[in-house]
Amino acid sequence: MSPKRLEAFSDGVIAIIITIMVLELRPPEGSGFDGLRPLVPKLLAYLLSFVLVAIYWNNHHHLFKVVERIDGAVMWSNMSLLFFLSLVPFATAWFGEQSGTLAPVIVYVVVQLGCAVSYYTMTRAMLRIHASDSPLAVALGRDTKGRVSLLMYLAAIPLSFASPWIGIAIIVGVAVMWLIPDKRVVRALSAEEE
Amino acid sequence: MSPKRLEAFSDGVIAIIITIMVLELRPPEGSGFDGLRPLVPKLLAYLLSFVLVAIYWNNHHHLFKVVERIDGAVMWSNMSLLFFLSLVPFATAWFGEQSGTLAPVIVYVVVQLGCAVSYYTMTRAMLRIHASDSPLAVALGRDTKGRVSLLMYLAAIPLSFASPWIGIAIIVGVAVMWLIPDKRVVRALSAEEE
Amino acid sequence: MSPKRLEAFSDGVIAIIITIMVLELRPPEGSGFDGLRPLVPKLLAYLLSFVLVAIYWNNHHHLFKVVERIDGAVMWSNMSLLFFLSLVPFATAWFGEQSGTLAPVIVYVVVQLGCAVSYYTMTRAMLRIHASDSPLAVALGRDTKGRVSLLMYLAAIPLSFASPWIGIAIIVGVAVMWLIPDKRVVRALSAEEE
Amino acid sequence: MSPKRLEAFSDGVIAIIITIMVLELRPPEGSGFDGLRPLVPKLLAYLLSFVLVAIYWNNHHHLFKVVERIDGAVMWSNMSLLFFLSLVPFATAWFGEQSGTLAPVIVYVVVQLGCAVSYYTMTRAMLRIHASDSPLAVALGRDTKGRVSLLMYLAAIPLSFASPWIGIAIIVGVAVMWLIPDKRVVRALSAEEE
Repeated sequence: MSPKRLEAFSDGVIAIIITIMVLELRPPEGSGFDGLRPLVPKLLAYLLSFVLVAIYWNNHHHLFKVVERIDGAVMWSNMSLLFFLSLVPFATAWFGEQSGTLAPVIVYVVVQLGCAVSYYTMTRAMLRIHASDSPLAVALGRDTKGRVSLLMYLAAIPLSFASPWIGIAIIVGVAVMWLIPDKRVVRALSAEEE
Repeated sequence: MSPKRLEAFSDGVIAIIITIMVLELRPPEGSGFDGLRPLVPKLLAYLLSFVLVAIYWNNHHHLFKVVERIDGAVMWSNMSLLFFLSLVPFATAWFGEQSGTLAPVIVYVVVQLGCAVSYYTMTRAMLRIHASDSPLAVALGRDTKGRVSLLMYLAAIPLSFASPWIGIAIIVGVAVMWLIPDKRVVRALSAEEE
Repeated sequence: MSPKRLEAFSDGVIAIIITIMVLELRPPEGSGFDGLRPLVPKLLAYLLSFVLVAIYWNNHHHLFKVVERIDGAVMWSNMSLLFFLSLVPFATAWFGEQSGTLAPVIVYVVVQLGCAVSYYTMTRAMLRIHASDSPLAVALGRDTKGRVSLLMYLAAIPLSFASPWIGIAIIVGVAVMWLIPDKRVVRALSAEEE
Repeated sequence: MSPKRLEAFSDGVIAIIITIMVLELRPPEGSGFDGLRPLVPKLLAYLLSFVLVAIYWNNHHHLFKVVERIDGAVMWSNMSLLFFLSLVPFATAWFGEQSGTLAPVIVYVVVQLGCAVSYYTMTRAMLRIHASDSPLAVALGRDTKGRVSLLMYLAAIPLSFASPWIGIAIIVGVAVMWLIPDKRVVRALSAEEE
């Protein structure tokens, strides 16, 4: 199986997901500035999802630079990642419309958790078919960020019942954590980069 | 004619189809968890279609790895496959909304049958322009799975009149059959894989 | 300027256009077979547009196989082609809803004429920067089909005022004419094809 | 990090944006020509946005031909460009529906300003990691057009309060300015072009 075509297909799906989310932003009825006010939470929800999906694209890109081969397990965990990512526009739409209420936050966190679990499963499937001293294994290392993200999403579910804003804060926290450049992969690549 | 560009174009169309299907999942009106209940059959219908389209992408990908040349017949049977695949979001939407009723199941099966016939026609058109000992001919072999899928879809149409759930069970059965990795192509590729 | 990236971008836009057209096909309200009847003209309109756009993709693909260089004029006439192609879903939606009435047929023909004029302009811009014995110039030859298509679309406009069905028949005629494989380019390529 | 994949991803997103904008053009209710009249301002707004997005694609394409390496800052300013470009369909829809009123023009200009600032930031981030005699630095030169565009968008905001049509005229002016081929990059590329 060819990593290149799986990567290109994933890129296509991610590009579509990141773009169709914005179709939820409907122009206001009238022509005044005040029609924009109800759009603010939707725009913020879209911005958060845009950043989260962009982080997946970025990590996916770094990962596939060091992947040497893939198999059916990698292919289907990648498909699972794309499936959960494709639910992000739906979750974002509900989350943006009903901001601060419990159920949309839980759905949003569950979809993000589905993405994170799929991504983590994919990296484990990759490690099984790469040598333990392969650039992939070196780059992933102990995958602290990946594990921490999983734990944060898991914690966000019960904590959202206390207050949905705690759940939102945790998701924003995951995004911020990933925005900090990933030293592990960067270091592994810096030698072989052209 | 270049297999590479036809493959890239097909990838683009399949990536769009697999993603726009989910636009049918509209966020509920209110903010409660009970608003999610009517979405469950739609989500299951979407999951089934996602898996079926992903299987086509995967098979298409394996097929084009061993294709050496294409002609107009291959190009237009591929276009026919893309046409029927592009009807999947429509069929999924009706099927998910009216779950368990006859007409949507029949339409869903007919669209899947259209995809399967197009794919089968495409493989026949390919075999006509490849030697009988080419990797393509070896990989396709007797194409048992392809023939069985066709027969299952054909059987699903009359059997759905007995109960639509039989039709649904047959479609799920086809998906499960294809999820089992295709040994034929994998074997043919394993030697030349880099 | 690189023909490869313009080709890839055009492929992306054409893949999206050919797929979003089908979003106009909305599932019927009820669950009966009779709900499908009003969809028949829409489905036929979609099929016609799918074939016409697929022909553009196919011709574009053949053309770019023999293109050696492009300039700003080629780039912008290609953008003009993509602009008119992007109006095809709109024209198809109206044409499919109000089948057999004048205005939607005229709009449909005008959009197709816009595509054809853009494509023709693009080939002229290409010829200006290629030698008269280049594979491109040989492949295009006198471009009889391109010229005849233009004349057919031009004739379809007044003739639709007599009966919209004449206009529809002419568009179908153009599609059929192009479905017949283009010997010119095929011949020019057959030697250098790998 | 690989410029190629960032370029391909950006191409995908831009292709989707330029195409989904047209989904705002809904077919008229009836079948008469007079139903088309209210679509004229929407079509003109779409044409303007199509040209502006096409210009970004074209400039992006020229830029990435001379880019030798990218880093996180380039990646995220490129993502910021894609984010603001993804707001163009929303801004176009409101602008086309409520033509000539203040708020939609301001929103349209602000979105364009967001694109322009992101693009400018991206070029600055690129210059930081390229030598001052690199093809990129030579091609960008003093980037007069980029700076003038920023100033024009900035001026369009207060001037639109005098009359929204001044704001519209300024945006059209920016588009026309960029439609004139960019001599700088063309000159830098002409030697190494194959």
